[in-house]
Amino acid sequence: MSHPTDVSTLLKWMAADFSNQEQAIENPPFFAHIRVCMRPLPANFLAGACLYLEQAYDFMLGQPYRVRVLHFLPKEDHILLENYKFADQEAVVGAGRDSAKLATLSSAQLEKMPGCDMTVRWSGHSFIGKVVPGKHCLVERKGKMSYLDNEFEITDDKLISYDRGRDLETDELLWGSIAGPFEFVKRQRFDNEVVVS
Amino acid sequence: MSHPTDVSTLLKWMAADFSNQEQAIENPPFFAHIRVCMRPLPANFLAGACLYLEQAYDFMLGQPYRVRVLHFLPKEDHILLENYKFADQEAVVGAGRDSAKLATLSSAQLEKMPGCDMTVRWSGHSFIGKVVPGKHCLVERKGKMSYLDNEFEITDDKLISYDRGRDLETDELLWGSIAGPFEFVKRQRFDNEVVVS
Repeated sequence: MSHPTDVSTLLKWMAADFSNQEQAIENPPFFAHIRVCMRPLPANFLAGACLYLEQAYDFMLGQPYRVRVLHFLPKEDHILLENYKFADQEAVVGAGRDSAKLATLSSAQLEKMPGCDMTVRWSGHSFIGKVVPGKHCLVERKGKMSYLDNEFEITDDKLISYDRGRDLETDELLWGSIAGPFEFVKRQRFDNEVVVS
Repeated sequence: MSHPTDVSTLLKWMAADFSNQEQAIENPPFFAHIRVCMRPLPANFLAGACLYLEQAYDFMLGQPYRVRVLHFLPKEDHILLENYKFADQEAVVGAGRDSAKLATLSSAQLEKMPGCDMTVRWSGHSFIGKVVPGKHCLVERKGKMSYLDNEFEITDDKLISYDRGRDLETDELLWGSIAGPFEFVKRQRFDNEVVVS
């Protein structure tokens, strides 16, 4: 079993190339086939552990719509995931599935996304992450601002993820499936690459 | 301009291989990349004009999730689209993009889907189709029954389509995107294959 500040277990569960293909096939036409690839960055990348993340439609893996670094910080009773993006995303794309390229990345390329940090708590059998409160993780779509209200739950073999955008004033759901969360399973594990000092 | 019972124009606008790829790319991860292929059946297939329809995820075109025949019947002030499925769907898949196979299909293979007929009305610049009232077009997903409340709007160059499932008792939306309808454009036109006697 794990515990509320067990960064090592959380990293091993998250470090994988995930796919929801089965869910897409079972629920046409309501789920795009998404890939989420999260892979450990070298131990000296930032103080503490980091995962590099690429999220993409399966049909255009080479043009991910989200590229991030997640920085894992154990707090008193939970784990904080700091979110960073890359100043030049084009320059790093592909690193998730190319360990040589991954090794060339530097924290100097990062830009912090303060309102998008996530709080991760141990549920007793899973870790559950939620964007920190405050509506500060903003997304503009078709000229309209919304705030991200993302959430995930992860175990050793499954990742459940809500991708949601809400109205800044009314909290109304503007983006996201009403047919339920994304359900990912692992295509490839990178848990053997996790090193926690 | 067209008019409320102009089956010929409606057929020419619908007869195409449609894709919403641009919409998927612009709105990750909320829209799957869908293909809708509608192609004229031979004039003697049924009395009046028919389109063969295959709807599929682009990443698995060979395993469409919806295969239908649409039968166009002009009424006093609108057009009725009768919906048929195939008793053995596996036997006909691929006919949408294979005119030789399309020519081998027979109306003896069809099964009527009475509650799923659509009423199509002329809006002044487009045709708008809606499933006939009555909640009789039923779909079961994950053990729960729902009724299809589908709708489309078509012009010469664009197809807008709502794929919705609602609760039989409360009418609550159970399936479908809150981020808006599918927006399709034409990859290939089959309007030159339309023959209306």
